[in-house]
Amino acid sequence: MDEFDIIHRLFRPLTGTEALALQDDGAILAPSQTPLVITTDTMTEGVHFLPATPAHLIARKLLRVNLSDLAAMAAVPKGYTLTLTGPFDEAWLTDFAAGLGEDQPSFGVHLWGGDTCAGRTDRTATITAFGHTDNPLRRKGALPGDWLVLTAPVGEAAAGLALARGDIRPDALPPGVDGARLLMRYHLPTPRTDIARAARDMLTAGIDISDGLFSEAEHLAKASAVGLDMREAGAGISLAALAAMASTPELHRRVWQGGDDYELLLTIPPDAWPEFKDMSKAHGGHPVVVGTCTDDPHERLLPKDLPADLAKMGWADFRGWRHPFG
Amino acid sequence: MDEFDIIHRLFRPLTGTEALALQDDGAILAPSQTPLVITTDTMTEGVHFLPATPAHLIARKLLRVNLSDLAAMAAVPKGYTLTLTGPFDEAWLTDFAAGLGEDQPSFGVHLWGGDTCAGRTDRTATITAFGHTDNPLRRKGALPGDWLVLTAPVGEAAAGLALARGDIRPDALPPGVDGARLLMRYHLPTPRTDIARAARDMLTAGIDISDGLFSEAEHLAKASAVGLDMREAGAGISLAALAAMASTPELHRRVWQGGDDYELLLTIPPDAWPEFKDMSKAHGGHPVVVGTCTDDPHERLLPKDLPADLAKMGWADFRGWRHPFG
Repeated sequence: MDEFDIIHRLFRPLTGTEALALQDDGAILAPSQTPLVITTDTMTEGVHFLPATPAHLIARKLLRVNLSDLAAMAAVPKGYTLTLTGPFDEAWLTDFAAGLGEDQPSFGVHLWGGDTCAGRTDRTATITAFGHTDNPLRRKGALPGDWLVLTAPVGEAAAGLALARGDIRPDALPPGVDGARLLMRYHLPTPRTDIARAARDMLTAGIDISDGLFSEAEHLAKASAVGLDMREAGAGISLAALAAMASTPELHRRVWQGGDDYELLLTIPPDAWPEFKDMSKAHGGHPVVVGTCTDDPHERLLPKDLPADLAKMGWADFRGWRHPFG
Repeated sequence: MDEFDIIHRLFRPLTGTEALALQDDGAILAPSQTPLVITTDTMTEGVHFLPATPAHLIARKLLRVNLSDLAAMAAVPKGYTLTLTGPFDEAWLTDFAAGLGEDQPSFGVHLWGGDTCAGRTDRTATITAFGHTDNPLRRKGALPGDWLVLTAPVGEAAAGLALARGDIRPDALPPGVDGARLLMRYHLPTPRTDIARAARDMLTAGIDISDGLFSEAEHLAKASAVGLDMREAGAGISLAALAAMASTPELHRRVWQGGDDYELLLTIPPDAWPEFKDMSKAHGGHPVVVGTCTDDPHERLLPKDLPADLAKMGWADFRGWRHPFG
């Protein structure tokens, strides 16, 4: 199997004009009047996915994780480059390319270039993604008194991961909890590419939830030099996820710690909430208020209704549960 | 060892303003009137480098390989993003970052962002690099009658690789052949970032030599729809490299097949040669003519003075020798 043959047959149909049909040493992006946002994320076998994970799901998650970073900065996604390393066969690569092809139209992106390399062991895939925005949203900018809002409750990816790992059994789920949905929330997050853009003028800061709610809130608070009152953050934890994990107490805390949801944590002045809520719902969100920024930059108030084992933990212990297959 | 701590301590000193101090979900590139060239290359342990290769050499080669792609398109390097996967320790990462820090000022680039991931086995590093140019050089554009010129003879990286692999012994080198220099030509190529830019107006097409002279010439010829008369290409093969390999006949052909030199193969009208030669030398090149573009797009003429074992080979057999540690 020839590298150039694979590139041209599988990946060239995914390209935009910027890629020059993958026939040159690089892509060419025409000048634009708006700033370009650039982000990169990598996924590797044994850490971010199991060897048995279908290649199209790996491809789509990797793309979506990158688009989530663009979404958090209120950028319109435009394109991406891709590198692949590992012991690939043609079937795996075909499935990987099919996953990208399935997602590209949903998010308005095209492949701009890439590199492949026949590595010896674990597969690794890296995407660098590009988007445009006139007014990038930053982690800094939140003001004391601003509300912390999520585009939807988090924790479902952690429950889905527990299912993927076999830590909980699908047939042990309580009635009314849809295991397949939780699993897909882990495998196939929905980057909120529309919400921050639509609501940009009312937002003061933002970040996406890759590492867990409290971990990401910490980044935002540090960058903005505000404190965090998250005593009511229980409203931001998915009830379905809590129900799924309820029968396995040692896993229950993962719903509170879990990352990989790729919802956005945004800050708004309280009086913007009604409008934000409507706008977020119009773009598929289930917005919820999870806290308030305070004026003491060292203040960190955890939810007051935490289960006993979590109530003993400190803020930093809520760092996400993200490297599950190592 | 905490990922965020590493990022901030080792990599933040390498950043440009675009990186926002690595505190946001992405970098922000201000609008520019000139097109942006984007390229990406990945390197992995056991394929592109041995586990024992010092991290600073891996870092510098990966950066330079990417800058070579920008050079081939006549773009001015500006910045890059980096992802790292593998079982890293702090000493390795510190050495890796030091290598980047050593090279950045030479090429006028800064780090714009990245991602790290604690993988299980082979280390993998990916760079996506960015440059600006008003007038990108392409692989297409060469015209029948144009000369094929190299910025310097190739083959030394192949000899250096043979030394790195232990296929030839340093003490078996003929007098006057500097093994350390050959080794560094393999480990630390010199991207010709100035030559194509300086000579842009006289160039019709270009590509960099990562996969071997004849393999890269093939890409250029296909994109330009020209034939290749490379009967005099022996002038483009390093005499030092040939001398180093002469005592090991089964390796000798690697000098002809070798990639990894990262010289540029450029096309010019013949009357531009005197000016190109002077300009190339002024920027550190050792320019040499290796062939002529012909008007039959299927024509491929190999060097006429090939050793007997190579004379039997076809054009496609000269595909580079690039995945040496698999």
